[in-house]
Amino acid sequence: MNNNKGFFSLGDNYRVPLELFQINRDKLRTRLLSKLSSSFNNENNHHNHDNNNNIDNDGMIVILQGGLSPSRYDTDHEPIFRQESYFWWLTGVKEPDCTMILTEQEWILAIPHLPPDYATVMGKIKTRTDLQQEYGADRVIYTHELESTLDTILLSSTTSSSSSSSDQQNEDGENNSFETISTPTTRPRRIYVLKGLNTDSGMVYDMIPPLLEKYPRTIKRYDDEEDEEEEATGGEPLGQDHHRQAVVVDEHTLFPILAECRVTKSPLELALMEHVTQITSFAHTYVMRNIQPDGTMWEYQAESLFRHYTYYNYGSRIQSYTSICGCGPNAAILHYGHAGEPNSRRILPDDNCLFDMGAEYQCYASDITCSFPANGKFSTKYSPIYQAVLDAQIAVYQMAKPGISWMDCHKAAEASILQSLLQIGMIRLGGDDDNDGPRKTIEELVEMRLGAVFMPHGLGHFIGIDTHDVGGYLPDCPPRIQQPGLVKLRTARILEPNMVLTVEPGCYFIDHLLDSALADPLLSKYLCHEVVEEYRGYGGVRLEDVIWIPPTEGESCVNFTLCPRTISEVEYVMAGGKWPPMKDEAPELRRIRLTDTTVSPLGPPPSK
Amino acid sequence: MNNNKGFFSLGDNYRVPLELFQINRDKLRTRLLSKLSSSFNNENNHHNHDNNNNIDNDGMIVILQGGLSPSRYDTDHEPIFRQESYFWWLTGVKEPDCTMILTEQEWILAIPHLPPDYATVMGKIKTRTDLQQEYGADRVIYTHELESTLDTILLSSTTSSSSSSSDQQNEDGENNSFETISTPTTRPRRIYVLKGLNTDSGMVYDMIPPLLEKYPRTIKRYDDEEDEEEEATGGEPLGQDHHRQAVVVDEHTLFPILAECRVTKSPLELALMEHVTQITSFAHTYVMRNIQPDGTMWEYQAESLFRHYTYYNYGSRIQSYTSICGCGPNAAILHYGHAGEPNSRRILPDDNCLFDMGAEYQCYASDITCSFPANGKFSTKYSPIYQAVLDAQIAVYQMAKPGISWMDCHKAAEASILQSLLQIGMIRLGGDDDNDGPRKTIEELVEMRLGAVFMPHGLGHFIGIDTHDVGGYLPDCPPRIQQPGLVKLRTARILEPNMVLTVEPGCYFIDHLLDSALADPLLSKYLCHEVVEEYRGYGGVRLEDVIWIPPTEGESCVNFTLCPRTISEVEYVMAGGKWPPMKDEAPELRRIRLTDTTVSPLGPPPSK
Repeated sequence: MNNNKGFFSLGDNYRVPLELFQINRDKLRTRLLSKLSSSFNNENNHHNHDNNNNIDNDGMIVILQGGLSPSRYDTDHEPIFRQESYFWWLTGVKEPDCTMILTEQEWILAIPHLPPDYATVMGKIKTRTDLQQEYGADRVIYTHELESTLDTILLSSTTSSSSSSSDQQNEDGENNSFETISTPTTRPRRIYVLKGLNTDSGMVYDMIPPLLEKYPRTIKRYDDEEDEEEEATGGEPLGQDHHRQAVVVDEHTLFPILAECRVTKSPLELALMEHVTQITSFAHTYVMRNIQPDGTMWEYQAESLFRHYTYYNYGSRIQSYTSICGCGPNAAILHYGHAGEPNSRRILPDDNCLFDMGAEYQCYASDITCSFPANGKFSTKYSPIYQAVLDAQIAVYQMAKPGISWMDCHKAAEASILQSLLQIGMIRLGGDDDNDGPRKTIEELVEMRLGAVFMPHGLGHFIGIDTHDVGGYLPDCPPRIQQPGLVKLRTARILEPNMVLTVEPGCYFIDHLLDSALADPLLSKYLCHEVVEEYRGYGGVRLEDVIWIPPTEGESCVNFTLCPRTISEVEYVMAGGKWPPMKDEAPELRRIRLTDTTVSPLGPPPSK
Repeated sequence: MNNNKGFFSLGDNYRVPLELFQINRDKLRTRLLSKLSSSFNNENNHHNHDNNNNIDNDGMIVILQGGLSPSRYDTDHEPIFRQESYFWWLTGVKEPDCTMILTEQEWILAIPHLPPDYATVMGKIKTRTDLQQEYGADRVIYTHELESTLDTILLSSTTSSSSSSSDQQNEDGENNSFETISTPTTRPRRIYVLKGLNTDSGMVYDMIPPLLEKYPRTIKRYDDEEDEEEEATGGEPLGQDHHRQAVVVDEHTLFPILAECRVTKSPLELALMEHVTQITSFAHTYVMRNIQPDGTMWEYQAESLFRHYTYYNYGSRIQSYTSICGCGPNAAILHYGHAGEPNSRRILPDDNCLFDMGAEYQCYASDITCSFPANGKFSTKYSPIYQAVLDAQIAVYQMAKPGISWMDCHKAAEASILQSLLQIGMIRLGGDDDNDGPRKTIEELVEMRLGAVFMPHGLGHFIGIDTHDVGGYLPDCPPRIQQPGLVKLRTARILEPNMVLTVEPGCYFIDHLLDSALADPLLSKYLCHEVVEEYRGYGGVRLEDVIWIPPTEGESCVNFTLCPRTISEVEYVMAGGKWPPMKDEAPELRRIRLTDTTVSPLGPPPSK
């Protein structure tokens, strides 16, 4: 990575400005301070109704642990380190074993003090000055200096909280966005750490830096008004040290704020995500062109082509996720490609392929799925399923904009797919005679969750530093719905400007789901068993794009993806046609760069 | 992976027979039972000198935990699972979250009981019968059945230990290798688990299956005669249950035996290791041919070429270790290529390259380093350093055979390099005048550790399932020597038949080591400062092969590596010459397959 001009890159590739992380830090500062300010306001109003114009919070000290050096089991095999995502979002630091402190005034990077011998094995040891310049930190300290640094910060801010009016003005004399008072608060000083539930994995983020173990931890949220007295648990008994005596580690306030910061992307993040989605698109096209339609190729070879194209050409060293390269019946396995099913099938000439692969660049992810026939020609059996999924994407693009519920988008995709399945006779609406019950509408079938038989996953998810990016079910967001299909939706939020999401409708023929539906008295009568059986074992189709919800109210979504999508586009590319095509035969897919003459993929890597 | 005919493979590639793992299990059984038998003998002799022909051990129950499903921090990002190495060696099981029980009679695989929903996401749930066939297990149980299964084994073996004479004969009536008695021992029954130090990482293997937590653990080795009474710690108080009452978890006996089993390879392992070394050799050749000598290429692109060739052509999904692709001065950084230095330099036309990369196939590793000029032509400055390292390899091949000390091989390589450096005038022997002290021999300079200034790492290491394979410094092996260079040697053992090791001499110009040596009054006078300064910043050369110590006393080592090594070979290949060349201009390198007409690399992957 190069940082000479304040950017990160690998090779002659996209330059990610250091400023991206500065903007992220400022975003967190603003939101956290605003939260603290309003909480203090509330608290002060509660205590002191006659004095509600003189409010202060006690400032912010955030401490975050970076990812630790990995190793494989007990061995010295070290997988390539990938920074923890929250830490990356705030710092852009690519080395393991670091810690950061973020206050209103400073961001401090703490690094391990490496022995001289490290240089022999790992290369020149960067000085603190090197790293300060590389990452734009206000200060770089060694990990063993963390404690004394924190003590100094606590002491100075404790002292200053009784004389903070001037300190908390900017250098040019402007007041900060929160108000100040001239008397100290009596509540303990808080250190904000990150702890909270990842609603995709079900795991809790809880990487608390070891130096904080001596402090008690809060057991309630900062603004939990029901219980005003500070409750704390753990840590050593409060000691004699004045400033340390009055400190608690707050592990509740930061998480929802920091996660929410990541939900909407800054312009610099959007540009990077568009880039990584473009290179992922080009790589999918490269894979399509290099599929051998004669039955000599294996699924994993597609994965290898994708990895190589994105790494060789665009510096994507690791992928966003394990490639899913399913052909034939494997196309119906949603997360095919794992160690137990390692893309290990031969690609037969009549197979249909479902390739779900994404590059990562500078820790920002893309996530694209293409489906196509291995031999490059759509059959009469495959075409209607493919078109059904493509139409579902278009249905979503017609409605996805700020203010729209993602749950509604999901249901619209399901409705579109069911409508297509109705046309090919796989489902029916009933009402043919008195015994058949009343005729249903597509919307009623959606509510009966018939769509989840064919699309048992959510329509899409936030994407950013993580492929399944955070913030799907934060507090105060619409909750997860416990119904088939909907329960898999990774968020049910209302779309907001600058969210970035995948749109990935799919239609699959999965034995055990078909069996359940056919055995279900409520659903079975709306399935045409013969047509279902005709498609059993046929695999499935998924089309996945990355879209951006633009900032303007009422403006439609923008599709960052640049893949061939219509049947004629896919057949054209697989026959060796040029891509991008410089004409847009499906503007309803909202691929903004399809006819942009400045967008040009790098050629095939050398192979001799 | 395919198992239809009792083998594992990916694609149309090398088929690893299931039998490999059966042979491994039998090897452990034989060695562990032999150990237990001899320990009982000793113990019985100690207690009961008049009865030393009627000895029994209490049988073997080994329980091993497989690797657990990985995830990246708190997210649902799952890196590709790679089985833990000991578990792989015994089972070949590629799925996570398994456990094995190995007794004299049985090997039992315990698998997680997966919910039906798993099939939607991960594919058809394999039945116990499926897995029994796939892995050749005697029984497959669910993890929740582990406890009852273990209880049954303990109960039956406790019962049988008083009537085991017939049980412990083979079906054809032969006695097993240990002797039997007709009275039970009074010592507690032991369950053998793995715990011990990995001497490469400094970390302790300690993956004890959770179900064993209730048993006390031993705190001494099985045959530690100083303290005959069983000492145990941890676990619940001993209960009423007769057979459970008399059980301890032995975490000391198994480790050195199992690690030692992995040190020497079976014929099936050797064939697989030769294969993975061959494909790694071909990939290095592919990389050399595709180096762009015009300064447009970056180091990481070589990594990408290597990965792609080995995966696309040979099904090597993950690499043995992170690729080290250092050019110019980076060639002197021993483990260059990590996240902090991600092979991110442009390859300049006059750079010399040091590429250390290895494929892994079915969890067996290779590890090869090639060094060469980026433009394909050896300069007069580079040639003598390159030749010095090649000559050091040859010096090792001339002596490496059963019975020879690896430490002596290391010193021979150092001596060879110093001899070459003497010839180019970088070092001197002293003794020019009275003030210069006595003239030294090369061997004396080796003992002064002058060689470690230029080669600060060990000559090579065991290789197998781990790149740095286990067993380097087991108890009863020659200890690590705490001297420069030698302290980095990963083993100091006497070579034994069927060991597989890397031979990787190197010569580097590393600033801080040169500075230290130049400032060292003992070493400085044997360095020619001007010549040293001429090479400062020049990078380095390493040549690394994988060799096999053959079974016959006195027979020379065999080189599995098939890379171009002589200067003319490297120049020929980089100019597009055919490889392997079908003639051997350097038989002293002992590359056995160099002129084998049945060995033919797959061609370049498609790229259009």
